[in-house]
Amino acid sequence: MITTVFKLLEQYGSPLYVYRYPVLKERCQQMKGFANKLEKGLSKGIVVNMHYSTKANSNIAILSAVKEAGLNVDCMSPVELELDKRSGFTADRMLYVCNNISADEMKMVHQEGVMICLDSISQVETWGKMFPGTHIMVRINPGTMGVGHSTKVITSGKKTKFGISEENIPLLLETAEKYDLHIKGTHQHLGSLFLNDKVFDYITGVEAGLAIVGKYFKEVEIVDLGGGFGVPYRPEEKPLNLDYVAEKLLPALNRFASSYPLVREFKFEPGRYIPCESGLLLGHVTAVKHENDTYWIGTDIGMNQLVRPSMYDSYHEVEVIHQSEEAGEPVIANFCGNICESGDILAKNRSVTLPEVGDAVIVYNSGAYGFSMASNYTGRERPAEVMLYEDSSSKLIRKRESWIDLLMNMF
Amino acid sequence: MITTVFKLLEQYGSPLYVYRYPVLKERCQQMKGFANKLEKGLSKGIVVNMHYSTKANSNIAILSAVKEAGLNVDCMSPVELELDKRSGFTADRMLYVCNNISADEMKMVHQEGVMICLDSISQVETWGKMFPGTHIMVRINPGTMGVGHSTKVITSGKKTKFGISEENIPLLLETAEKYDLHIKGTHQHLGSLFLNDKVFDYITGVEAGLAIVGKYFKEVEIVDLGGGFGVPYRPEEKPLNLDYVAEKLLPALNRFASSYPLVREFKFEPGRYIPCESGLLLGHVTAVKHENDTYWIGTDIGMNQLVRPSMYDSYHEVEVIHQSEEAGEPVIANFCGNICESGDILAKNRSVTLPEVGDAVIVYNSGAYGFSMASNYTGRERPAEVMLYEDSSSKLIRKRESWIDLLMNMF
Repeated sequence: MITTVFKLLEQYGSPLYVYRYPVLKERCQQMKGFANKLEKGLSKGIVVNMHYSTKANSNIAILSAVKEAGLNVDCMSPVELELDKRSGFTADRMLYVCNNISADEMKMVHQEGVMICLDSISQVETWGKMFPGTHIMVRINPGTMGVGHSTKVITSGKKTKFGISEENIPLLLETAEKYDLHIKGTHQHLGSLFLNDKVFDYITGVEAGLAIVGKYFKEVEIVDLGGGFGVPYRPEEKPLNLDYVAEKLLPALNRFASSYPLVREFKFEPGRYIPCESGLLLGHVTAVKHENDTYWIGTDIGMNQLVRPSMYDSYHEVEVIHQSEEAGEPVIANFCGNICESGDILAKNRSVTLPEVGDAVIVYNSGAYGFSMASNYTGRERPAEVMLYEDSSSKLIRKRESWIDLLMNMF
Repeated sequence: MITTVFKLLEQYGSPLYVYRYPVLKERCQQMKGFANKLEKGLSKGIVVNMHYSTKANSNIAILSAVKEAGLNVDCMSPVELELDKRSGFTADRMLYVCNNISADEMKMVHQEGVMICLDSISQVETWGKMFPGTHIMVRINPGTMGVGHSTKVITSGKKTKFGISEENIPLLLETAEKYDLHIKGTHQHLGSLFLNDKVFDYITGVEAGLAIVGKYFKEVEIVDLGGGFGVPYRPEEKPLNLDYVAEKLLPALNRFASSYPLVREFKFEPGRYIPCESGLLLGHVTAVKHENDTYWIGTDIGMNQLVRPSMYDSYHEVEVIHQSEEAGEPVIANFCGNICESGDILAKNRSVTLPEVGDAVIVYNSGAYGFSMASNYTGRERPAEVMLYEDSSSKLIRKRESWIDLLMNMF
């Protein structure tokens, strides 16, 4: 790996997003396996579809791998829909899960023939006026406390902007009826990043949602249970046991299906789970300092390239790849980037052997919400993206931005 | 203003960054006036230069206005330097205030003949090896608690990644001597966004820095006191009284100058102060919902367009511009965007008259760290930017991104 890291940085420049194809493929297959396991345990005829959430990483090479693995996709903007199409997804394998979109955007979705999942009565009203008599899905908020790695990503419960709560469902049904809309599916999403210790909370949330579906809806055939499948960011965390999740989910799903025989499909929306662990963000050490009893390892990986640590205080495992064979001094250090902002800190209090300027750095689990949230803050170009295959061959899947990209819309 | 808002949205699309030229010009003039006031109060021959911090807003139209007002500029990446050059700044009016940059980037700065301000002994070492015998500036960390609107932007004190602390200055001087580097200037920056109530802390920090300069440095001619000049984001906040700041600063600067006669220039680095208040982010109401006793006003202004509220919990004043003349019901509401993330909240608990879908929204104080931190998260294009003149004429100063911009580097 050491040789590969330096070789990739030399070939494609620094910093650099690298996705390991075998890991990506394995995560897709695990999701497919999860769906298969659920299908086997459900009454005959009920299908389970996994819709990869494009926002986690919308590179066409990632999306194409998802498609080849037989998964479906969800999207939430015209550009994401375009990317999904260009990756080979047909409308029947796509789902438009949006909130607060304009009437024009709804027209585009309708024209593309992609099923839309609407997030509020207000949006149902906007849709209904334009497209009466059509099929829609709606997002409900089961009202239970959501699960998530940060309050910024908990998407259920009383304080979230998402979905329609139980008290408003009669009004939703009335609105749908006014425009002869057929609510063919419901959607719920509890939040992001649950691991084994939160499976119980997840199932509780799922059951709360299913109870609402069973109580109020009469035409629903598709029940979308959202995503949230977590990955271990910290070394002490264990991978999510998907067999265990399936085992715990099946009784709830079967109970629901037996009392609500209309249901013909369950959907899930894994996002992070699929590309996250395949992704490495590579960079260089540009400075090493020791100030106020703290070691700081400066790198070219700024908060514009990977915003999660600055935005959510997220943990990413960071490894130094030394050029020299002499081991450095073992220290506790902070890693930071090259942006003039104090929040530009990549990792805090990490045990490392002290690097030298020019050593390489690997930031693990950078495949999800890495490039997709990157910006040009302080005039820094976004990195290139590369797919790395099992035989160590690599392919550029997105060119590094140039300064021209950053300036061109001003002329 | 109501007519103007709807007209601009119709002409240039939604959402839209608008900068009011008269406000921008006034803020530039205030900074120039502040410099003049200091110069008048200082010993003859000492100049005061204001370097606008490009990262706050790097649109060439903003930079050009700054240049025309006779201010200087600082930059911190090759792209920012390019933007400054294209706005007409010559090398002598620029300053490169960087941290953790690569040797290649240093070479570019050297070639451009722009004075560099280095942030660590490690970076001084890298520079010295390549360019012995040159003039440099260095960033010191006065060690006092910084000031700032969020811990993410406090840039002084023991826990920041920035600068060289007093204990390390002997080693810094030794390193500089090794490469015959002449430390012609020092830089310190206490943090972002101080208002009148923090002026005392600001002066304390300035004095702590000056004490270090006087104690250790023998060749310093330029003392850069950084930026941090705040603006009132909240209605109850008062504008920074620059006369008061100047009045409180002068005794400290004069005391320093009398004991350290080498000093010939003080620099300041206002960033936010200059474009912030001129900027309005305009958008549309796309949904109105009432869930769990909370009103949510959905808009097309997502966290990708203006990340400050999501990132720092920053307050921005938001106003609804109603299409209809009938006043809506007065409510307390949250404003949110169109991104599928719970953190995508623009403003919380605001008193408004309930809008309707299609009404317009103004987000005030969006001229700094607005567009410059924007991203394409969830495949949303970044908005257009427009300059609005006193006679209500307007000029497109950056085109809206197109979906092609977001895809092109993948092909």
